[in-house]
Amino acid sequence: MAEPIDFWFDFSSPYGYLMSERIDDLAARFGRKVRWHPILLGVIFKAHGGAPLTLQHPARAAYALRDFERSARFMGIPYRHPTRFPLPTQNAARAYYWLHGEDCALARRFAHAVYRALFVDDRDISAPNAVLEIAANLGVDRSNLETALQSLEMKNRLKEEVDSALRIGIFGSPHVIIDGEAFFGADRLPQIERWLQTGGF
Amino acid sequence: MAEPIDFWFDFSSPYGYLMSERIDDLAARFGRKVRWHPILLGVIFKAHGGAPLTLQHPARAAYALRDFERSARFMGIPYRHPTRFPLPTQNAARAYYWLHGEDCALARRFAHAVYRALFVDDRDISAPNAVLEIAANLGVDRSNLETALQSLEMKNRLKEEVDSALRIGIFGSPHVIIDGEAFFGADRLPQIERWLQTGGF
Repeated sequence: MAEPIDFWFDFSSPYGYLMSERIDDLAARFGRKVRWHPILLGVIFKAHGGAPLTLQHPARAAYALRDFERSARFMGIPYRHPTRFPLPTQNAARAYYWLHGEDCALARRFAHAVYRALFVDDRDISAPNAVLEIAANLGVDRSNLETALQSLEMKNRLKEEVDSALRIGIFGSPHVIIDGEAFFGADRLPQIERWLQTGGF
Repeated sequence: MAEPIDFWFDFSSPYGYLMSERIDDLAARFGRKVRWHPILLGVIFKAHGGAPLTLQHPARAAYALRDFERSARFMGIPYRHPTRFPLPTQNAARAYYWLHGEDCALARRFAHAVYRALFVDDRDISAPNAVLEIAANLGVDRSNLETALQSLEMKNRLKEEVDSALRIGIFGSPHVIIDGEAFFGADRLPQIERWLQTGGF
């Protein structure tokens, strides 16, 4: 069986959210699994340049806001731009990695729930409490997760993932890597599909 | 008949070139004409932030080079990344506007020839001589065009187009504007098609 696809994203990335709603199904059509890697764009931007799209020059920021919503409609995905944006996502990312160690299918449901909480229900997902509540709704033991969020192990795990991302040249969210080929942005989904169909073009 | 679509681009923009190979045919399928507006990205970047993709951080630049070529293959358009890149395009742009005043169909053929000279034949299209030669191959009188390139009228015409672009918030190349709706990037062609089909989504 072919190697899994890698999906790198920040939980506060609108295009990461759009990708998250499509990448697993697309990969499955070609018999491929996807490894999800939440990372922290703030660290990435410090190393590789870049800034949140809505904090750029007003003309760029205005277009970005319009494009998030239009791209979501184009893809048939619900989207409401969050009141607080961008926001810190280290708690959500650490929770993801801890849950993944416990139950990888549950971690995937949690990741979808976090993204939808932010980009559909306009919830501030930055605080530990918000993350704990989202997880609890999926049946996760709240105090176990709370302990994990504070643990050095999960802090290190997230740091290692961000370091890996930096090492392989991830400079934004989302990146999808298929057999060493990098695709940046939800708008590369048609190219990803062709790549999976043909093994490269 | 519906208003023409506006296509804003710099002659040194790879994604502008990709758009230039598709936008007229796409628009024609929906009974729409396209107005082409070559502009100068250097001026645009000064006003709205931004930098040539290949002059950004190495990880971004490396991805951009790969994406130019892969996107061209994906779209079935020949592409060879130019040896000199980016490069000044004011001569090509002024020539376009002068030719457009003489014969708009000829101006369109000239614009395609300039883009293909740069992105297929790896020619340096920055110098007046290169622009004159490309035009001469299309039957344009060389000395008339040479005079026009030096004229205050054509310098002002290009300046007015760049000023218009700044005024309406054009921050990169290509931008396509359909009835007030802005689409940035060759990768927005599927959204442009849907917009033309449906009148908005």
